[in-house]
This record gives sequence, structure tokens and C-alpha cells, in this order.
Amino acid sequence: MAKPALNKDTRLCISLAARPSNIGTRFHNYLYEQLGLDFIYKAFTTTDIAAAIGGVRALGIRGCSVSMPFKQDVLELVDHVEDSARAINAVNTIVNDDGVLTAANTDYTAVQRLIAVYGLDPDSAVLIRGSGGMASAVATAFRDSGFGVGTIVARNSDSGPELAQRLGYDWRSEVGDLRAPVIVNVTPIGMANGPEENEPAYDHDVIAAARTVFDVVAVPSETPLIATARSAGKQVITGAEVIALQAAEQFERYTGVRPTPQQVAEASAFSRA
Amino acid sequence: MAKPALNKDTRLCISLAARPSNIGTRFHNYLYEQLGLDFIYKAFTTTDIAAAIGGVRALGIRGCSVSMPFKQDVLELVDHVEDSARAINAVNTIVNDDGVLTAANTDYTAVQRLIAVYGLDPDSAVLIRGSGGMASAVATAFRDSGFGVGTIVARNSDSGPELAQRLGYDWRSEVGDLRAPVIVNVTPIGMANGPEENEPAYDHDVIAAARTVFDVVAVPSETPLIATARSAGKQVITGAEVIALQAAEQFERYTGVRPTPQQVAEASAFSRA
Repeated sequence: MAKPALNKDTRLCISLAARPSNIGTRFHNYLYEQLGLDFIYKAFTTTDIAAAIGGVRALGIRGCSVSMPFKQDVLELVDHVEDSARAINAVNTIVNDDGVLTAANTDYTAVQRLIAVYGLDPDSAVLIRGSGGMASAVATAFRDSGFGVGTIVARNSDSGPELAQRLGYDWRSEVGDLRAPVIVNVTPIGMANGPEENEPAYDHDVIAAARTVFDVVAVPSETPLIATARSAGKQVITGAEVIALQAAEQFERYTGVRPTPQQVAEASAFSRA
Repeated sequence: MAKPALNKDTRLCISLAARPSNIGTRFHNYLYEQLGLDFIYKAFTTTDIAAAIGGVRALGIRGCSVSMPFKQDVLELVDHVEDSARAINAVNTIVNDDGVLTAANTDYTAVQRLIAVYGLDPDSAVLIRGSGGMASAVATAFRDSGFGVGTIVARNSDSGPELAQRLGYDWRSEVGDLRAPVIVNVTPIGMANGPEENEPAYDHDVIAAARTVFDVVAVPSETPLIATARSAGKQVITGAEVIALQAAEQFERYTGVRPTPQQVAEASAFSRA
């Protein structure tokens, strides 16, 4: 079960981001070590995404995680695009099978899985704050999980109505008097070191009217929104769960091995230490 | 001095070969560990050398060792070609400085250095067996070290005369009655698992007439030629020395750190274990 020393047959997985963090590198290498897998993982950046993906293909790099600002650019550089990525026009995972590149979006699939695991009722109306790339993944996962009635709340009067229209949802620029049994935050409100670090993404009375509160912010995972929802006895789903699930799925696609939830939790804690 | 754990800023060096061995991967990683350098090294193969080198550039891969059959193809894929590589039209080392690729040939520079270290007399005639890529590097290093009188012995009636003519040397298809103070083997004769594993690359009387016997075969480094020359009390230079020197030079170009001869010897022994 010991991880072999780095050798010519060791598989390499990478990530591509404008500003790489150490989280993915630490998460994946921790699990390779724990599981005795002959893999290494390292974050990269690039100023030439086409050549970088060409290099992934030509060097037989097994997997490539994709972050901002490359999530759309890579769509035309791969051979196959899974529904998960096609639905939201954004890729976060590329798997290389002997030179054939398949793109997927494990943020989308992770949210779909959480909706199922927590037993959210698709007949409920859903309120989703945000209209960026991740908001698109989350909202589309809700719609594709059967949620027919939804509202996108976003100040951006381009991306907000656009996302809502694509999904057949309503758009509002402010929450106002809107209430719903399922409320979701996909904005940076509550994010550590952000300008609205101490703000809950929804007002107390919106939280009070909800049954389920889902915050995609992962750092910290105990945002003001989640903290308020917990004290109000609501069902909560945190961004840490989204990240862990999407990373586990990515990991499984790259290695063929599904880590246990306990292993994912350990690796996740290690990756942020 | 401890090597840091793999992280987003760890530098990656690679090799490209049709059939990668583990030697370079073990050699370089051993020294990174010993010297506490934040680098990793891994062998790769490719069927698309242009895209692979494009990937080296786009991913900021720091160094790329080049083996058969890519040593010439990469000449047109880099930004600068050092004299060492230009002289023999073959590259074994590419250094990436912030996207600017410089190609060199450390086989050539290693042979030049060995000629100097062993104090070989450039007024001696030299007999060189072989006309492949490595023979070209070795013969050109002799010529550029001042050896004006030389003979290329090669059965190949294209590459043999071509190499000889380029250097102003003679060409013969067989050794025959040729004798010289410096005799060099750059063919696979004496190579482990080869068809002529147990043959000395030169006959006993050619060895007897020589002062210096230089065999570029590295596995094993104690070839029948070297063994016979040693028992005859000749000065010998082995392929292991060429490999160690060229690898040390490659290592220094990639990392900026020159390993000691002792460290190179240890890494070399480790890489073949």
C-alpha cells in the first residue's frame, strides 16, 4: 500500500489556473500517499491555454483540473464534452484516456448529488443568489434535478437575466420580499477576507422562512449565513461539502479509485492546513 | 536542507524519449532529495514532439532532457541553439527561462571535458567506431578539442562518410590494419542484452597498439573492450563517466546547483540500482 517512489510510469495530474493555490496539490498528493497510488499532482499556470492543453495531450498527463479563467476556453480544445460541462458551458475537469480528452464539470455533479443526498424536494421553489460561473453550475444542477420554480437574484443585469432565461427561472436584482423553502448563496458574501466577510447572504427573515439553507462559500464553510441558519434550526449544506464531493469525484475520474468520505475529509483538512 | 513537500511552486523537469528508462528520473530525484531542492523530475514519452515542447513552454516546465528519436526534431522548436547542439545537429537538453527555450548538448560538452581531464594529446590520431547521433557528438567533440587526424569506422556507407567529411576525418568501413593511440567505441558493441554483448569493439592487437581506450557504452560500463584494455594496462575512459558528467551538467543547467562528483557518483549508482 506504500506509494512507490517517483518513476517513469508515475501518472501526473495537474491543475491550470491564472493564480494557482496549493489546495488541490495538497489534497490529491495526500490521498495518493494514503492510498498508495503511483500518481503525483501539481498546480500550474499558463499564458497559453491551447498549448498547455496540447501539452496535456502530448505528454499523456492523466488529468487536468481547470479553474478561472480557462473554464470556457478549454471547451474547444478537448475531444468530448460531458453533459455536466455542456449544460453550463464550463469545464473544471479534463480526463486524458490515451490522448482522448473528455471534459466534465464536477461542481455541477457534486451539487446534483448533494440535492439527492439531502433529499431536497424538487417541488419547492428555490432562490439562488449569484450569476457567475459557479452560480450557473449550481442553478443548472437544481433545474436538472427537477426544480421547476426558481429565482436568480443578481445585481448584474446582463448575466442575471441571461442565466434565469436559460433555465426558465425568474430574475430579480434584489431579494426584496422574495421567500422560498430552499435558499442558496453563490456569491462571495461571507467569504473570508472579502468585503462582505461578516454579512449573511440573506436577511434573517428570508432565512426564517426557509427550510434549507445552502451556501457554496467554502472558506470559511461556517459563513454568517450558515451560522444563522444553524441557530435557527434549518437544514444546512455548506461549501466545504461541495468542494469535498467535487474533489472526490475528480479524484475518482483521474485514478479510478473512490476515496471514502473519511479520507476526503482528512485530505480536505490537510489541504487547507 | 530538507526537500519541501510537492507544492504549486515546485519546479518540474522532464525527459522525452520514445522508450523512457527510469535512470534520469531516479538520478535527478535522488539529487533533489540530497540537496533539498524544490524540484521533481519525470520521464515522459510522446507521439507529438511539437505539442510536447509547446507544453513545456506553456506549462513552464523548467528543463527537458531529449533522447531518441527527438534530438533533431526539437532544433526547430526552441528559441536558441547553443554551439554544442548546433555543431552536431542534435539536442539532449532544453532549458526553459520564463518561456524562452535554449537547446544544448551535454553529451558533447561532457566528452570535451573528459578529453581535457584525462589530458588526451590532440596531436594523436583518433579512431572512432560508429556514425550515429552519439558518434557524431563524440567525434565532433574530439575534432573541436583539436584532434586533427581521425578516422571514422562505420559500416553505414551513408552516415559514415558524411560524418567523416564534415569533420575532415577519413572514413573506413572496417578497422582492418588501422591502429591509433586513441581508440573510441560509439557503437552498441558490448552493450548489455545486445547481439554483440560479449564482443570487444576492437580486436586485441588494436587495443595493444593504443594508449587510451574510450568506450561510450554505459550499461555495463565494464564492457569487454574496457576489460581487455584494463588488463593490458591502458588508460581507460568509460561510458559511465560520460553519462555522469553530462547528467551533472544537465542538472546544473536546470537547477543552478552543481552537484559534487561524489554526489553524482552516488546518484548514478542509485539510478542504476
